[in-house]
Amino acid sequence: MNDALVLRAGDGPVARLTLNNPAKLNALSDAMLAALHVALDKVAEDEAIRVVILNGAGKVFCAGHDLKEMQAAREAGDGGRADWLDLFARCSAVMARIQSLPQPVIAQAHGIATAAGCQLVATCDLAIAARDTKFGVNGVNIGLFCSTPMVALSRNIHRKQAFEMLTTGEFIDAHRAREVGLINRVAETDLETETMVFAQTIAAKLGSAVRIGKQAFYEQSQMTVADAYAYTGDVMAANMALDDTDEGISAFLEKRKPSWS
Amino acid sequence: MNDALVLRAGDGPVARLTLNNPAKLNALSDAMLAALHVALDKVAEDEAIRVVILNGAGKVFCAGHDLKEMQAAREAGDGGRADWLDLFARCSAVMARIQSLPQPVIAQAHGIATAAGCQLVATCDLAIAARDTKFGVNGVNIGLFCSTPMVALSRNIHRKQAFEMLTTGEFIDAHRAREVGLINRVAETDLETETMVFAQTIAAKLGSAVRIGKQAFYEQSQMTVADAYAYTGDVMAANMALDDTDEGISAFLEKRKPSWS
Amino acid sequence: MNDALVLRAGDGPVARLTLNNPAKLNALSDAMLAALHVALDKVAEDEAIRVVILNGAGKVFCAGHDLKEMQAAREAGDGGRADWLDLFARCSAVMARIQSLPQPVIAQAHGIATAAGCQLVATCDLAIAARDTKFGVNGVNIGLFCSTPMVALSRNIHRKQAFEMLTTGEFIDAHRAREVGLINRVAETDLETETMVFAQTIAAKLGSAVRIGKQAFYEQSQMTVADAYAYTGDVMAANMALDDTDEGISAFLEKRKPSWS
Repeated sequence: MNDALVLRAGDGPVARLTLNNPAKLNALSDAMLAALHVALDKVAEDEAIRVVILNGAGKVFCAGHDLKEMQAAREAGDGGRADWLDLFARCSAVMARIQSLPQPVIAQAHGIATAAGCQLVATCDLAIAARDTKFGVNGVNIGLFCSTPMVALSRNIHRKQAFEMLTTGEFIDAHRAREVGLINRVAETDLETETMVFAQTIAAKLGSAVRIGKQAFYEQSQMTVADAYAYTGDVMAANMALDDTDEGISAFLEKRKPSWS
Repeated sequence: MNDALVLRAGDGPVARLTLNNPAKLNALSDAMLAALHVALDKVAEDEAIRVVILNGAGKVFCAGHDLKEMQAAREAGDGGRADWLDLFARCSAVMARIQSLPQPVIAQAHGIATAAGCQLVATCDLAIAARDTKFGVNGVNIGLFCSTPMVALSRNIHRKQAFEMLTTGEFIDAHRAREVGLINRVAETDLETETMVFAQTIAAKLGSAVRIGKQAFYEQSQMTVADAYAYTGDVMAANMALDDTDEGISAFLEKRKPSWS
Repeated sequence: MNDALVLRAGDGPVARLTLNNPAKLNALSDAMLAALHVALDKVAEDEAIRVVILNGAGKVFCAGHDLKEMQAAREAGDGGRADWLDLFARCSAVMARIQSLPQPVIAQAHGIATAAGCQLVATCDLAIAARDTKFGVNGVNIGLFCSTPMVALSRNIHRKQAFEMLTTGEFIDAHRAREVGLINRVAETDLETETMVFAQTIAAKLGSAVRIGKQAFYEQSQMTVADAYAYTGDVMAANMALDDTDEGISAFLEKRKPSWS
């Protein structure tokens, strides 16, 4: 298991998925994307898991796509176009899988998170980073504008800040990343410990309610306000109908701890 | 009038609506929602009113829905579903009424603003809070994810900050609420005085222009940029056609105070 | 050329367009809008230009529309309505032209940027300002709500901050403008020098990649996430197919500087 591209650890309600190709800065190669998609699918089916942490082995979180692989595709008859389209479709599918996962996913970033690595951070539901982590969508530096990472980035932070990162290729540090809204927390002491505290806070909630809420979060975000209220009214009523929610509210009203199944 | 669930005060251009059920932390019960909707409808018809302040009597602004009522609905033949759907529809209608009100509404928050109480703050056009006010969408703590409050919250602040509040159930203070965009101002000295200054600043403007602008604000926000410009071009031309706007611009060009009707 | 309403300077990859009617605070009069649209069209056709700086001559960046012209339109048979609709259509077309321009446009703001002048700042892809610059959408002070500027402003900053500026008519300074997301940078020492550093950072990138990216930025911003990924996947594949991008990636992999055409 240790030479797998994505390691899975943890046996409690918190699963840790680790991008595990330090020699390649955890690049999102074809194999890495496939391994990550499979790992996510397995977590999705595991009802014991309530929160997922995604991090990277070695010196960095993730440095983006595997440029050597992308260059190699130029040898194909069409110059690479079909390969690249397929790559971006597979990469976007992994991003969509993170948001369609029943459990919240926390990006635990350190070192650098660049290009598609920064996209991963933006795509995760939540993010925490070590103080010296650097974030960038710096494909522009090598002539390849980060157009797919932009989809996630520009839905996390304000327009001008996103445009600046995309066109200057400059890094921002963890403090600035929190300020603009790209991450939630900057670890003040130990990143792994603080990430686990973050994860366990959410894992202690009623899992079924969190699952309902996560799905609704992204669904409603693309609706008009009127449609979003009609939809989330249904969601709330379905949430109320859960036995565990009945117990949770009863416990609160009776000033005792809930006894959840 | 003093035992009404929503008190109305003020006889100048600033109306104050006060949620008035301190014993229940101003919970949005069936009766409170009905009283608030009626109070809003009356303000809407009152052309003398230019700004509305919404606050809460007692120790807190508003602690969300009335959980006892929601639990009581479980006795119904369908287990409560019809009652809950109706509740969320009525609550969403109150939220929509705040944004369709001709006058700007300022939430004056103190103590706590949680769940649907935090949704009220997010829904009001503007918000100011005492320094020690706590904001949370903490239904997740009792197994009921704040899916309807999320609609308003996620249209006020960045995605990751909203997701964190919704899944951790943790409170943020007034300083942080301003930082993320949930409120406009933190009262440094006296909340009521500073809220009145805020309200009177807006009440001193041409009321008809503010009404035109508020309606356009929400309409255009759900359009494409091209549609939004076509629409607001019409709105600006209609605004220009007002006699008071003619007077306002003339007065500015002549360096005198406008004499508005 | 010096008495032109819009001056063009610079002969390298950075073009500077200067609103040049200091006596009228660079108001967006009919003539100014026409001159700016023409100047933008010319820049668009100039493949040597990679970045555009937009600033204002004299004491301020831009104080908005020409109110005298707008008042004069009242003499028309329809009271001005056709003229105003035409004005707002032409103004919106200039704003659209800035975003459809192949090159990034940096607003270099000083003094004041009010009403349609603030809209210009919000519309430019990037913005930098002197520390004492004041930003406002203060038409409400004279009875004319800034409904068209609101379209750009509310797509740059959070909802409550936009609503406050629009209804109070109050100014924010450069520090606060950066905090809320309206501008990227506050010049600490010399505005013009720091703007040029900003521009040259972007001008040093592969121009064709930046052009591809800028267009995609606005296109994808109005799509659903799924559509945005499908679209930007195509964009990335087209970007990969450029010879200069092949060279850029190869140079990176070989740890040398790229030799771009």
